Amino acid sequence: MFDVEGHDVHQCPGGWVPVYPDQDQRLALMSIGFLLQNRDDAVVWRGPKKNAMIKQFIGDVVWGDLDYLIIDTPPGTSDEHISVVENVRPYHPDGAVLVTTPQGVAVGDVRRELTFCRKTKLPVLGVIENMSGFVCPHCTECTNVFSKGGGEALANQFNVPFLGCVPLDPQLTRSLEEGQRFVDAFPTSTTAQAIGRVTQTLLQREEQQDDMDTS
Amino acid sequence: MFDVEGHDVHQCPGGWVPVYPDQDQRLALMSIGFLLQNRDDAVVWRGPKKNAMIKQFIGDVVWGDLDYLIIDTPPGTSDEHISVVENVRPYHPDGAVLVTTPQGVAVGDVRRELTFCRKTKLPVLGVIENMSGFVCPHCTECTNVFSKGGGEALANQFNVPFLGCVPLDPQLTRSLEEGQRFVDAFPTSTTAQAIGRVTQTLLQREEQQDDMDTS
Repeated sequence: MFDVEGHDVHQCPGGWVPVYPDQDQRLALMSIGFLLQNRDDAVVWRGPKKNAMIKQFIGDVVWGDLDYLIIDTPPGTSDEHISVVENVRPYHPDGAVLVTTPQGVAVGDVRRELTFCRKTKLPVLGVIENMSGFVCPHCTECTNVFSKGGGEALANQFNVPFLGCVPLDPQLTRSLEEGQRFVDAFPTSTTAQAIGRVTQTLLQREEQQDDMDTS
Repeated sequence: MFDVEGHDVHQCPGGWVPVYPDQDQRLALMSIGFLLQNRDDAVVWRGPKKNAMIKQFIGDVVWGDLDYLIIDTPPGTSDEHISVVENVRPYHPDGAVLVTTPQGVAVGDVRRELTFCRKTKLPVLGVIENMSGFVCPHCTECTNVFSKGGGEALANQFNVPFLGCVPLDPQLTRSLEEGQRFVDAFPTSTTAQAIGRVTQTLLQREEQQDDMDTS
């Protein structure tokens, strides 16, 4: 997605150097993909090896002075999630953003993830409803391919912020396939604007939090 | 999806009795969901507990005389997959059906799963491309929401059967939400027919295999 295939992670005296997709090094990436000899190699690891790697990704990478560290996890509430929560706790994480699709089976999974956040006392920044409707590029009619409203209902049920709906957009997939920045390439698309609003909401919340902390 | 929420698993002298969604008991289901006190409880388990449960689901359930045992796994190549492969090996499994969506990032994951099948000597029955195009119900134009052709290209790359494309269909989601049998309710839909063709291909392959084994 970031057009960084084939990039390598290097070792420096301070630890692993992450991969920078941009010249200006505004974004640093770390992924197990960078450590594989062959990109099609299966990473056949049971939990303990994954947990050790997560610990290294958080503690042994020369992240530098970061504004934000975003950790993308698979769905569920297993090794990856327990290890991430345990390893970021000393750094007082802002919290979790939960992404669901609208239909019941997906919302059920994310409902259990919210229960997990409550149990582990990880704050919840909010819920995003992804793949929320599809506007046909031929007739501009909207179809709720995967039902509708499940994300907002879930946020209300748990009394956490609903961050918004992000509709399906074939241009998003195409941009990701081609390593193109979707939000820059299609700034007027409904999906790009929805992503922008989610980001703004999260950044404003952060600023308010900072104001509260300093006042 | 099977409208079996709230059903319980009972213990009998031979082991756990699975849940039957139908009166005629043609389908037996087993899921960790049946064992939870509350359906929203998060199952916060590291690998070893999951592995023990998978072993029990295969060995300690009174499955009876089955024609087919289908094990649905999450994406990836970790604890669940290693444990399933290890525990079904004594029963000589027919093989794995790999389901991908068309876009590159999904195909990349499934490519690693194919590598995993090769490594563990699990036969591959074929690849299905799911969410493969969306026919707008308003104008009947087809849009490739998540790109197109990734599943077939992957099957060709690994020289395994391509089982077909299953397009997106909002009626499928709605049926699943309502516990309705989609294939019976919408038999003429493109998606129901695509699912039917995949099933037929798999059943025919099975018959050919049986003929070869008896000849």
